[in-house]
Amino acid sequence: MQFQNENSFDIKEKIDHSKIAILPIGAVEAHGPHLPLGTDNLLAERLSEKLAERVNGFVLPTLPYGQVWSLRNFPGSIHIRNDSLIRFLVDIGKSLYHQGFTTFAMVNGHLGNGTALKESARALYETCPDMRVLYFFYPGMNKAAAEVRETQSSHNTYFHACEIETSYMLYLAPEYVDMDKAITDIPDIPADADVTPTPWEEFTASAVLGDAKLATEEKGKYIVNIALENMVHFFNSNSEQE
Amino acid sequence: MQFQNENSFDIKEKIDHSKIAILPIGAVEAHGPHLPLGTDNLLAERLSEKLAERVNGFVLPTLPYGQVWSLRNFPGSIHIRNDSLIRFLVDIGKSLYHQGFTTFAMVNGHLGNGTALKESARALYETCPDMRVLYFFYPGMNKAAAEVRETQSSHNTYFHACEIETSYMLYLAPEYVDMDKAITDIPDIPADADVTPTPWEEFTASAVLGDAKLATEEKGKYIVNIALENMVHFFNSNSEQE
Amino acid sequence: MQFQNENSFDIKEKIDHSKIAILPIGAVEAHGPHLPLGTDNLLAERLSEKLAERVNGFVLPTLPYGQVWSLRNFPGSIHIRNDSLIRFLVDIGKSLYHQGFTTFAMVNGHLGNGTALKESARALYETCPDMRVLYFFYPGMNKAAAEVRETQSSHNTYFHACEIETSYMLYLAPEYVDMDKAITDIPDIPADADVTPTPWEEFTASAVLGDAKLATEEKGKYIVNIALENMVHFFNSNSEQE
Amino acid sequence: MQFQNENSFDIKEKIDHSKIAILPIGAVEAHGPHLPLGTDNLLAERLSEKLAERVNGFVLPTLPYGQVWSLRNFPGSIHIRNDSLIRFLVDIGKSLYHQGFTTFAMVNGHLGNGTALKESARALYETCPDMRVLYFFYPGMNKAAAEVRETQSSHNTYFHACEIETSYMLYLAPEYVDMDKAITDIPDIPADADVTPTPWEEFTASAVLGDAKLATEEKGKYIVNIALENMVHFFNSNSEQE
Amino acid sequence: MQFQNENSFDIKEKIDHSKIAILPIGAVEAHGPHLPLGTDNLLAERLSEKLAERVNGFVLPTLPYGQVWSLRNFPGSIHIRNDSLIRFLVDIGKSLYHQGFTTFAMVNGHLGNGTALKESARALYETCPDMRVLYFFYPGMNKAAAEVRETQSSHNTYFHACEIETSYMLYLAPEYVDMDKAITDIPDIPADADVTPTPWEEFTASAVLGDAKLATEEKGKYIVNIALENMVHFFNSNSEQE
Amino acid sequence: MQFQNENSFDIKEKIDHSKIAILPIGAVEAHGPHLPLGTDNLLAERLSEKLAERVNGFVLPTLPYGQVWSLRNFPGSIHIRNDSLIRFLVDIGKSLYHQGFTTFAMVNGHLGNGTALKESARALYETCPDMRVLYFFYPGMNKAAAEVRETQSSHNTYFHACEIETSYMLYLAPEYVDMDKAITDIPDIPADADVTPTPWEEFTASAVLGDAKLATEEKGKYIVNIALENMVHFFNSNSEQE
Repeated sequence: MQFQNENSFDIKEKIDHSKIAILPIGAVEAHGPHLPLGTDNLLAERLSEKLAERVNGFVLPTLPYGQVWSLRNFPGSIHIRNDSLIRFLVDIGKSLYHQGFTTFAMVNGHLGNGTALKESARALYETCPDMRVLYFFYPGMNKAAAEVRETQSSHNTYFHACEIETSYMLYLAPEYVDMDKAITDIPDIPADADVTPTPWEEFTASAVLGDAKLATEEKGKYIVNIALENMVHFFNSNSEQE
Repeated sequence: MQFQNENSFDIKEKIDHSKIAILPIGAVEAHGPHLPLGTDNLLAERLSEKLAERVNGFVLPTLPYGQVWSLRNFPGSIHIRNDSLIRFLVDIGKSLYHQGFTTFAMVNGHLGNGTALKESARALYETCPDMRVLYFFYPGMNKAAAEVRETQSSHNTYFHACEIETSYMLYLAPEYVDMDKAITDIPDIPADADVTPTPWEEFTASAVLGDAKLATEEKGKYIVNIALENMVHFFNSNSEQE
Repeated sequence: MQFQNENSFDIKEKIDHSKIAILPIGAVEAHGPHLPLGTDNLLAERLSEKLAERVNGFVLPTLPYGQVWSLRNFPGSIHIRNDSLIRFLVDIGKSLYHQGFTTFAMVNGHLGNGTALKESARALYETCPDMRVLYFFYPGMNKAAAEVRETQSSHNTYFHACEIETSYMLYLAPEYVDMDKAITDIPDIPADADVTPTPWEEFTASAVLGDAKLATEEKGKYIVNIALENMVHFFNSNSEQE
Repeated sequence: MQFQNENSFDIKEKIDHSKIAILPIGAVEAHGPHLPLGTDNLLAERLSEKLAERVNGFVLPTLPYGQVWSLRNFPGSIHIRNDSLIRFLVDIGKSLYHQGFTTFAMVNGHLGNGTALKESARALYETCPDMRVLYFFYPGMNKAAAEVRETQSSHNTYFHACEIETSYMLYLAPEYVDMDKAITDIPDIPADADVTPTPWEEFTASAVLGDAKLATEEKGKYIVNIALENMVHFFNSNSEQE
Repeated sequence: MQFQNENSFDIKEKIDHSKIAILPIGAVEAHGPHLPLGTDNLLAERLSEKLAERVNGFVLPTLPYGQVWSLRNFPGSIHIRNDSLIRFLVDIGKSLYHQGFTTFAMVNGHLGNGTALKESARALYETCPDMRVLYFFYPGMNKAAAEVRETQSSHNTYFHACEIETSYMLYLAPEYVDMDKAITDIPDIPADADVTPTPWEEFTASAVLGDAKLATEEKGKYIVNIALENMVHFFNSNSEQE
Repeated sequence: MQFQNENSFDIKEKIDHSKIAILPIGAVEAHGPHLPLGTDNLLAERLSEKLAERVNGFVLPTLPYGQVWSLRNFPGSIHIRNDSLIRFLVDIGKSLYHQGFTTFAMVNGHLGNGTALKESARALYETCPDMRVLYFFYPGMNKAAAEVRETQSSHNTYFHACEIETSYMLYLAPEYVDMDKAITDIPDIPADADVTPTPWEEFTASAVLGDAKLATEEKGKYIVNIALENMVHFFNSNSEQE
């Protein structure tokens, strides 16, 4: 299941049996006092493993650096420009296509990677016509999160180191969470953050967007499993089409 | 020590105490029947950890994809173009500089990354004047390997999945080695491989360049520790200069 | 108010009095049988004029080509790649900065331009530190449209040549609408359109996403004016900050 | 005739009947006190309309930004770099080719665009083998202008906001000309302007290269119609060849 | 005078005495049966030497490859893309600036290089503010050639392997001319060659544009010396300004 | 044999008889007090001529500029970035392929060009499948030099303006050597020069790496002829394969 643990002599036949490659991609980014810088990597990695089990795919080594423009000035953040990230992902995709994979699924743990993932998928759509490229960022989570959250979201698309993401970690990587340090920090995100470049230091000092103290494993499990079901469904719907 | 396990609230002060960032970089590449595709990642990662202990540095998350032009047609290989790799490394380096690091050491487990590492280091030399950028590929290993190897090298700079690299793995990541599958395959590398582009399928079917059966943990330990000493020395020599 | 109608002798002093430049940007793209290919240009242009009146800004000549990946295979569509569009917008922005403008607002009539606008705004954020860059795509329209629409939306973010967009045209550019040709075509957008590249020909032959027959000038006026108010508000909120 | 006023349902058949696309391209650039910044756009646009009538082609929306290196420091000028402009034009051309056009004619109102037009035409020559790409800048005007001008030209290739260009405007867009403000300003263009980069502020403060007061509609009509005849002739000569 | 014949120990002081660097640039390109492929290199080189003597400058090694789009399909032609050429020239220019030169003159023997020279000069204008960049292509030759030519020019800007260029060779590099092979070949250059990409194989099989048999050393000497005087004048006019 | 001295009418048939193109490539770079800046160009050029005689190939005009990062701050050095050099070489190679050559051999006189040569060769390997691309830097010289040198090498791969390179010059271009100025300057190259960017001014003021006084024509002849034999061998080995 872990692609890089396979050897070159066996892998060809194994790819013939499962032509699905799953790439966890996250980021190194500030996530408040209670979550590690690698939170998005851990989430992407573990979610990818669950997905691989369900669809019988290979998990590729995690790409642990992403586009972190908004938080690049926070301690510990490492920022990859969109252009660089797109090129890198396209190269990975082309090799996978060359190796015989017919599905390349990017499991994303970091919202900021969204543009690069979509753009690289479109580029691969042109050059690798027989390979389906998927990019997932917790599909269906908005609705599911709305059901379980006890506090309002700070923003309609951002969620970060908060009740929700901390719950994901409590479910998927609890050994990296220090709930004793969890804080409540509800920023007043300016309305124009959606219409003008707005580094997050303009509205938060902690990078926590909400009440991390309310996070629970149960909430995380509920949302993550819905997202997982949705991902599995996208794989199957495609199989039916073929 | 693992950078991504730190949190954003503490990291700033910690960087003030150790301004050394160590990036393991490897590749996903065919390594014969007895070594996994991720061999170079495992080696880079574990060597980086040893180095970090010695110089009190942070280990960044492994960049697990590299330039694999020569073996890109072997089962399981994933190839990143030099240009893409250089851009990515430069972005990482710029962020580290922005975060206050004064040393960025790339610990390389894959010969093919050499050009990209050197080029990105030169680019950072211009843009990040106060940060020392190092790139290591087992410094001093040629002499050390000559002392312990029982078979001649197939090539003056290449070594791959052979007596030497398998020994590294037996020392650094033995749980990923299957010595029962180790083979002896001494290719006749054409002399013009140094003067014209030569994909390795032209001279080897196994990607093993020598006698992997002769690998031992002791040989690996001997060479790797010399390389490690050399790396540590480069850090210290610099400290003395300052 | 129309920047290109001014002359070079007077413009310097006029810029000193109003440092606001507004760029309408649209696309040439299939919009069904009842709306012209230039729909997004007309909307962007006329909305920009209304905005310019309210904030006392200059309207730049419309950039009438945009990113039309999704509909590029439909008759009449012209597609600009994101990279090309970003470079072009950055060049415009840099010149405006050089000319003394302190606000550069891009009024977007085409959803597909979103990525390029955001990316170019971020690039200008770095290079033109004293110029505010805004990108608007009917801010607040989702809520407003929900209030007046009589049919459900086909998709949570897409709307196209439908009840809503046709209403915009009936309000802003009615002379270009042929309601006799308006159709009802409610496509079944596959769920995976959000997670894999999906040209629209896969789910619609008309490019109309809904019931264009239900469009009215009143609906358009209601939503557009809310969007306009929001835009004006973003200008003023900024003025207050300064 | 105005491409963007067509709708997607009818356009396919219409393209089958006229496979000629005409792109007006100009610039936003200083043109003295009596002509607007958008002079080159107005000229390109109206000349394109006349050409479209004659050859039964479609007029695309005007690309209203061009390469304005020489005058980029004058009030009101907006400068697009050659590289950016070339990419943008190549994208437009590729889409037109994809849409079934066999002739793509760029009608240029601004000398500074010449390099970008030629380079993009050559790029399209390689990638769109069955589409003829034409770039026009008042073909034959030098001879015609020499016949009617009452003052000598300031330069052998430049003409700007002068007797000649103002005459074009009086013929094609008189409502935008304010002859009361027309001036006589005959600069001494240094000889080395042809052999070294020479921004125009080095030799003119007005950007008027000559005696704008001598402009007349008749002169403009005479030259423009010769240029128009020449353009039409290029279309026909090609038809004959086919 | 030949820069590359100097040694590093003396050159610094010598540059202090003459801050003028002259780069001959030509092309490898078909020039008919009587002139060698390297005609433009020979001309650029020898003209540069004459110029260097007059202005006391250094002649850099000839850059012997140029943009040969129009003749790239002729036997023996080698074509460099404009982008590649521009980058290369900019790199040379930046080094010269770094070395302390204040004048960088490109002496061009090949019309096709014109765009690249102008663009690279503009790029250097921005980055090397105190260095004057000149690009020469026989300045003033049109008038001079008109005085001595016995046949009409085939084209208003092209001249190639004809009465004129062969005369240049008879004056500057007669040992490379084989007048016994000189031919008369007056092509009918289609009028649209100025408005659409037109490889020269469309109108000539010989690449000779005129009557090479009429070439004489005297004609060459007359024109070349006028061009040389003009170049010298541009140097001096600048010196006076300073 | 000198490609640029051939004419376009004869060259096609000549290429049919010898499909081998040899490109000398060097650099303009500091080489101490006794050797000229163009040392690497002279060596590449004359070695190419010897090779051409032996394999019956064409010598292309020398590309006299190369990557000189390490010595770019020394008086007289001109530095081309790797990217620029790669593009330029790829363009040359594509034209040669288009012209019918089946072997493109780059004879390199400057170590710093190594990366660009290898990268351009790989790029051409993809795009010009039937053309063999070779890059030579004195193949086999290390062993041969060890046999004749009287002093130890300062570095395991660098040699520069020293006993060895001066010997090359005494054999290939003695008229450019001034042995009276030859010096002994044995720098202490820091060990970390192999692992971190290290401009040579950090360890040498002369750019001479050793004892130039010990250079002799005989030493040069011995090594150069071995390198030449090796090059010839690479050509023949390939011919045998075909």
